[in-house]
Amino acid sequence: MKLLVVNPNTTASMTAKIGEAARSVAGAGVEIVAVTSPMGPASIEGFYDEAFAVPGLIAAIADGQRAGADAAIVACFDDTGLDAARSFGNIPVVGICEAALVTAGQIAKRIAVVTTLARSVVPVEELVRRYGYAERVRVSACDVAVLALEEPGSGARSKLEAEIARAVAGGAEAVVLGCAGMADLAKALSARFGLPVVDGVAAAVKQAEALVSLGLATAKTGAYATPSPKAYAGMLAPFAPESDGRT
Amino acid sequence: MKLLVVNPNTTASMTAKIGEAARSVAGAGVEIVAVTSPMGPASIEGFYDEAFAVPGLIAAIADGQRAGADAAIVACFDDTGLDAARSFGNIPVVGICEAALVTAGQIAKRIAVVTTLARSVVPVEELVRRYGYAERVRVSACDVAVLALEEPGSGARSKLEAEIARAVAGGAEAVVLGCAGMADLAKALSARFGLPVVDGVAAAVKQAEALVSLGLATAKTGAYATPSPKAYAGMLAPFAPESDGRT
Amino acid sequence: MKLLVVNPNTTASMTAKIGEAARSVAGAGVEIVAVTSPMGPASIEGFYDEAFAVPGLIAAIADGQRAGADAAIVACFDDTGLDAARSFGNIPVVGICEAALVTAGQIAKRIAVVTTLARSVVPVEELVRRYGYAERVRVSACDVAVLALEEPGSGARSKLEAEIARAVAGGAEAVVLGCAGMADLAKALSARFGLPVVDGVAAAVKQAEALVSLGLATAKTGAYATPSPKAYAGMLAPFAPESDGRT
Amino acid sequence: MKLLVVNPNTTASMTAKIGEAARSVAGAGVEIVAVTSPMGPASIEGFYDEAFAVPGLIAAIADGQRAGADAAIVACFDDTGLDAARSFGNIPVVGICEAALVTAGQIAKRIAVVTTLARSVVPVEELVRRYGYAERVRVSACDVAVLALEEPGSGARSKLEAEIARAVAGGAEAVVLGCAGMADLAKALSARFGLPVVDGVAAAVKQAEALVSLGLATAKTGAYATPSPKAYAGMLAPFAPESDGRT
Amino acid sequence: MKLLVVNPNTTASMTAKIGEAARSVAGAGVEIVAVTSPMGPASIEGFYDEAFAVPGLIAAIADGQRAGADAAIVACFDDTGLDAARSFGNIPVVGICEAALVTAGQIAKRIAVVTTLARSVVPVEELVRRYGYAERVRVSACDVAVLALEEPGSGARSKLEAEIARAVAGGAEAVVLGCAGMADLAKALSARFGLPVVDGVAAAVKQAEALVSLGLATAKTGAYATPSPKAYAGMLAPFAPESDGRT
Amino acid sequence: MKLLVVNPNTTASMTAKIGEAARSVAGAGVEIVAVTSPMGPASIEGFYDEAFAVPGLIAAIADGQRAGADAAIVACFDDTGLDAARSFGNIPVVGICEAALVTAGQIAKRIAVVTTLARSVVPVEELVRRYGYAERVRVSACDVAVLALEEPGSGARSKLEAEIARAVAGGAEAVVLGCAGMADLAKALSARFGLPVVDGVAAAVKQAEALVSLGLATAKTGAYATPSPKAYAGMLAPFAPESDGRT
Repeated sequence: MKLLVVNPNTTASMTAKIGEAARSVAGAGVEIVAVTSPMGPASIEGFYDEAFAVPGLIAAIADGQRAGADAAIVACFDDTGLDAARSFGNIPVVGICEAALVTAGQIAKRIAVVTTLARSVVPVEELVRRYGYAERVRVSACDVAVLALEEPGSGARSKLEAEIARAVAGGAEAVVLGCAGMADLAKALSARFGLPVVDGVAAAVKQAEALVSLGLATAKTGAYATPSPKAYAGMLAPFAPESDGRT
Repeated sequence: MKLLVVNPNTTASMTAKIGEAARSVAGAGVEIVAVTSPMGPASIEGFYDEAFAVPGLIAAIADGQRAGADAAIVACFDDTGLDAARSFGNIPVVGICEAALVTAGQIAKRIAVVTTLARSVVPVEELVRRYGYAERVRVSACDVAVLALEEPGSGARSKLEAEIARAVAGGAEAVVLGCAGMADLAKALSARFGLPVVDGVAAAVKQAEALVSLGLATAKTGAYATPSPKAYAGMLAPFAPESDGRT
Repeated sequence: MKLLVVNPNTTASMTAKIGEAARSVAGAGVEIVAVTSPMGPASIEGFYDEAFAVPGLIAAIADGQRAGADAAIVACFDDTGLDAARSFGNIPVVGICEAALVTAGQIAKRIAVVTTLARSVVPVEELVRRYGYAERVRVSACDVAVLALEEPGSGARSKLEAEIARAVAGGAEAVVLGCAGMADLAKALSARFGLPVVDGVAAAVKQAEALVSLGLATAKTGAYATPSPKAYAGMLAPFAPESDGRT
Repeated sequence: MKLLVVNPNTTASMTAKIGEAARSVAGAGVEIVAVTSPMGPASIEGFYDEAFAVPGLIAAIADGQRAGADAAIVACFDDTGLDAARSFGNIPVVGICEAALVTAGQIAKRIAVVTTLARSVVPVEELVRRYGYAERVRVSACDVAVLALEEPGSGARSKLEAEIARAVAGGAEAVVLGCAGMADLAKALSARFGLPVVDGVAAAVKQAEALVSLGLATAKTGAYATPSPKAYAGMLAPFAPESDGRT
Repeated sequence: MKLLVVNPNTTASMTAKIGEAARSVAGAGVEIVAVTSPMGPASIEGFYDEAFAVPGLIAAIADGQRAGADAAIVACFDDTGLDAARSFGNIPVVGICEAALVTAGQIAKRIAVVTTLARSVVPVEELVRRYGYAERVRVSACDVAVLALEEPGSGARSKLEAEIARAVAGGAEAVVLGCAGMADLAKALSARFGLPVVDGVAAAVKQAEALVSLGLATAKTGAYATPSPKAYAGMLAPFAPESDGRT
Repeated sequence: MKLLVVNPNTTASMTAKIGEAARSVAGAGVEIVAVTSPMGPASIEGFYDEAFAVPGLIAAIADGQRAGADAAIVACFDDTGLDAARSFGNIPVVGICEAALVTAGQIAKRIAVVTTLARSVVPVEELVRRYGYAERVRVSACDVAVLALEEPGSGARSKLEAEIARAVAGGAEAVVLGCAGMADLAKALSARFGLPVVDGVAAAVKQAEALVSLGLATAKTGAYATPSPKAYAGMLAPFAPESDGRT
């Protein structure tokens, strides 16, 4: 089984970390192909960056699908372009926010999601509500920019720990790390706080393996129907759905 | 007052119709500048097209803002890129779905939204839920492709009327037309069915006029904060937020 | 266009302030007719006062409608008698709470409503929920009686500012003033706190202008159907719906 | 124990029926005092009538309270003025819609409320939602005017039965009669359809008995706080809260 | 009328207290039969204990029903086995959590439920949500084990009062005692805090009296249909539904 | 990895079918241990049977845990005793309803759950709501008793297909089989209807594998805390939590 893990931002060091997290939990015989988006924002912080990460994400999924990927993972916690990616492709597509929530939801009732910047709280809350976890989840930010997670000495780790401590004091039974760039910290934080800490990248690998093993692919009637063939103008023309529904 | 009306698809005939609908309700001294997106899909039908309409939309808003627009309207019923556009700019941005719902909600309790294709029902339902109107609104499709609305003889009008008739029989007190391409039909349909029919383009013009008149602009703390400056790679580089927060 | 602005309480100084706020934002050619309710409570604080403000409100709307008003505004933040007024009349009726919420909702995700007394918090929360904004809005009170807003030296302004400061610290991106008697403070508070502050009276003027410009009136099938003709006993007899549906 | 049952419309024949229904279930030693509202609409059908029923209701409760009533019942299914009545008085006040729902909710999961006219469906749905029963209750109308229930030969009974049959076919496990004027039919309908049929008047008598027996009265902090003393103008002056909180 | 009050835990001293609370509010001619569950946990604290309390509860109800009980009360605040008990029997079954909420909901808008241990907060919140009271109710724990309520000198009373004080400071208008073992404290706490305090045992007695007086029994179509006859294996064989639907 | 699959009813033929379904999707190196509950109902149809299936379920999990199981699956679609099982054990516990929903939710927006008898619809709807999928899921019954699924010639298959056809006509994009006894039918039904059909048993195997691979176990603070040590009376005494938290 070959799983494509797309980092929808364009920072390769983060892709490396994500790939490592994915490989560390991948099942026997599962190949992880971690790719960096070929275009768009260096990090995804809020609604604007998110929108501009979608074309690169789709390009990466199209490439991966042609290269034989069995499923794709969108490795950014705002599940960038997830619905578009599901409409586009023939393979299952997993988002790390959704994967983390469904995983945490099977081991805890009250869940804290700790994300990076305040501006990302509302976008994540909207995802949480859409996925149906609003009554069980509280989202907060630790006030760390995404790329600061890549910089030793940025103080990111201690800010993150402080925010987790607040969440635990408020009754959280499990913690979800709200950024793909935190993927390497889950085990240490779980040990430190004595409760389950879920990393979305790892969770998504197992959800993707599950869907592939079960022979399940995205439903193609209704909301995720393959896009109708039509012209796309300008520099986005290469993304136009072809008459056979493939880009 | 100058209002920018962006058709986020690239079909100029639809822009003409939208511009006309906007001008027919614009207040005295309000200039309507209707523009066609410079890139992306010829029509927006479902999640995939929607994602690829955002760059063109932002480009059009950036141009319009530089040219002195006081507010912008996103003239596609799935409110394509609305959150990104609000984060981006300094001027208010109005979506035609949200504008239509807040308008209809002040004159009726039970509202029917009639959109084009079945694949658009779920995306519109998700908007309706996000805006808070789920308990009062039912969304259905009339099974007409967006561009068929531009073609005389396509049978689009009669399919639309049949779906409205079903909604009225089911208790709808007002109807919202769920596609910018239906903007020219509101008055005739209202007369035919004897109840209020709301066109989102017209509704959005009045909401934009309202925000500008009130001196209100998008909140710039929290979810709509101006994007942090950062690099965007590849062909999307021109969209990178600048250090002063303008693209 | 002639807009009737009804102060549903019987305090004329508040009507003057409300009328001024309305006129300050009214469009060209829009005449504001601000009237004080002819009967009922001097201020509306909680469920009991609210119920006794409805007859005077309806009387004022009936008069205004006969005098040619194109739309009516209910200028009390608990949207006193709004559903009754919409059922009664042939002209659109706008409530300042609903108008403020739909306005703020187009420029911010998280909204704070600051009202007067603690006893008004639950009634306003019930409105917020009914209008669909519960997930985005927090309601709190600044512990100022409505009429204290009319008295220089009452300390009302500083209590209001303290409550707004608390709301902003809690993540509010925009503020809605939860009493018609605060209509004169919006601009100064917006400047002071650096975020949008919405006054419901001004917002309602623009919503009423919008509905009239769009040729939209209240739906008359279903919940807002004209009252059936019937006798009303006692001193309320003059309010009985006539056989032709007009009072 | 003395229970005041207020028919908030002014039709004495309906009061007689309501009083009889109340007395048929009243406990030993419970005196039922059924009164007709001294002013307002002959029947309550929709938002407009409802608003004009409140002054008469409050007048009746004030009288009843002075005469020693231990609790009051508002015997109209839209729970006319219930929040105002609770704010006003010192005795518990029970609404027949709320009483019927809490009763039916303890014996069935899925409940059908069958009300009179289509225009009452939305007001009742809003009550149902406010009371928290929206997920379990469906509201429909049998297309019978309230006073037609008083007229032999009006065909009201068969229309009501037809609507109940539809609800049962749709999965309803219990039925709530959505009008005080149906109070005499519960037992016969229950026998005919073989499932519990709840009449709100009877249910309310038992809820009022319960509150009185338990020594519970309306909370007087927060939303139901006694109205602040203030002037009421015009013909509503007699309803002004006095300085000691009694009208 | 004979009301069976089942203490679904096996601690007889708590049954005595519950029986006393029930008798103190029972109507004239109402006999209270308080029984201790014949098997299962000594106290019910969280999901695990709750599950093991059901067989004893059903056994007690079966016995009570055979002995002529007219209704049964489940006297544990997590409404242990309530749905199973309603499916089982022919008599109405009342839960003390549901009874307390419907009672408190008729006298207050904002309600605090104070339960024993933190682990019981989520189970009670799930009940509150299921019953439809989530928007009005906050649940918290006073950190007292159930059986500590039986021990003089345990400090339980002062911890409970401290938690109530916090709830009142947070806006609660009424308090519900979230454990049957607190049944003796309601009156004193109401006097001390000056607001209504509802004990679920007392509330349930009145709800059971109400249902019996109204001639209402559990709906037997749909969710509460009598269990289909089938074999039960092992030591649970005596609980198998018989072919005539009785155990 | 060793996964315990508990059939919480006592029908061994169903356990065989469930075990086969589990083994057909289990990963390399995953041992499936399928066990039949040692006591309780022959099939689980509604609230009553469900309650009596819990002791046998816990006994089976306790045995399995002692024998080295890494995770447990509750193989009945009403997720019988799932919260109790999670509180009890040290290993992750997966329910087939929850597993099926989180799986289907990653490949479709609108999901139909088709269960057996009408009496199970409400219990499943309550699960769906609790898990957060209510807005996307419709539950219906195909009117087949659980054990009829085991009998060739019972007509069960055609009734199930008829109900799926109805769901698809109503807009379902994916189907979830709402009974463990349907586990063998998923692939054939998916082929016949041309959309994803999810069997909960298979889905649960992959979710359990995922949790074990990720090193995640049930949170043990809060709602799922290990039961406090205490006595259990009567025949349930063996289930009492021991002082070290193991039964």
